[in-house]
Amino acid sequence: MREVFQQELREVQERLIEIASLVATSIENATTAFNESNVGLAETVIADDDKIDAAALELDELAINILARQQPVARDLRIVVSALRISASLERMGDMAEHIAQLARYRFPDKVVPKSLRGTFSKLGTLDVEIARKLVELLRTEDVRLAEEIRNDDDRIDALHLSVFDKVLGETWKGAAVDTVDATLASRYHERFADHAVSIAKKVQYLATGEWAAAE
Amino acid sequence: MREVFQQELREVQERLIEIASLVATSIENATTAFNESNVGLAETVIADDDKIDAAALELDELAINILARQQPVARDLRIVVSALRISASLERMGDMAEHIAQLARYRFPDKVVPKSLRGTFSKLGTLDVEIARKLVELLRTEDVRLAEEIRNDDDRIDALHLSVFDKVLGETWKGAAVDTVDATLASRYHERFADHAVSIAKKVQYLATGEWAAAE
Repeated sequence: MREVFQQELREVQERLIEIASLVATSIENATTAFNESNVGLAETVIADDDKIDAAALELDELAINILARQQPVARDLRIVVSALRISASLERMGDMAEHIAQLARYRFPDKVVPKSLRGTFSKLGTLDVEIARKLVELLRTEDVRLAEEIRNDDDRIDALHLSVFDKVLGETWKGAAVDTVDATLASRYHERFADHAVSIAKKVQYLATGEWAAAE
Repeated sequence: MREVFQQELREVQERLIEIASLVATSIENATTAFNESNVGLAETVIADDDKIDAAALELDELAINILARQQPVARDLRIVVSALRISASLERMGDMAEHIAQLARYRFPDKVVPKSLRGTFSKLGTLDVEIARKLVELLRTEDVRLAEEIRNDDDRIDALHLSVFDKVLGETWKGAAVDTVDATLASRYHERFADHAVSIAKKVQYLATGEWAAAE
């Protein structure tokens, strides 16, 4: 029985890694679509979000099934409950990638943000992609140093997010209202993507070390 | 054992109702603070968010404890897992109320949005408050008609949310970039608040009827 359970936990872990990989691909495609105004890539991200949602739903069913059949306690129970929460966060990360892609599609063939903000959004995109890749590795290896790195990357994203507002609210901003709206939403989507990654990283860190970093 | 378990499920339900009531109070205070530029009320909402977070965390611990001790299966298991998810959504609703309050505090003594948008935000606020109150009643009574009403209210909120963009992107918009940013964020916070309520309503509806409306 115990061996079956360990096998099932590995199955849960593998599925989480798989969903995180889908999310990493989506954010890479979404930020490329956004920065390079690639409408085909944007369509791919939007279509792929259904796959992420379906994979998350299947994982949830598996986790609930394990709870019902194996009746885990203590640390094993925490792992399965955490898997449900991680699945929910990954699903939201997929939604953020989709929102970024939708902005790119909506503004095509124009770029979403004016020249003065493109460097900032290029950095935001690069960091989101890095965070997503680190998350895949963190779920695979449970190496808590990656959780620390994700938190540090998130600090850099928060600073870039604030710098978008500084730019938009500064005297040199010449953007129309539509540019202001899009920059505001796009910046928030990039920032929320990273927040969800931090939330997952904390859960993995907790499972690996027993030290709980509470919800903020 | 069974009776103890039923008692514990009632305890879970009561705590969910309690957290939903805190959220209803917060969104009422937040939207009043926002619409009337009441900085004291905004501070109250910001301080109260810690209470909501703490109550949600306590409920999660109770639910995990019940899973470990009672090892529920079938519908009972679904109820406890749903409680964990509802708790997470309520926690996010509290965050949205806090974000709305933070905008009010930040712009005080000015109002957050210019005159041309105040009617729309007043309606958004009223609908969010109504939704929050209906959610408390839905959790209390499991009357699925309330779940339907919440979905309908959410449709009205989505329409108002879109009308904010129509206004901001229209030719008559005279707002500065800061007005555009704030209107964009405020509208999104109001809309996300309602989305989380719909997500909770679907879970309660599923538990009451067995019909699952999947994540969107």
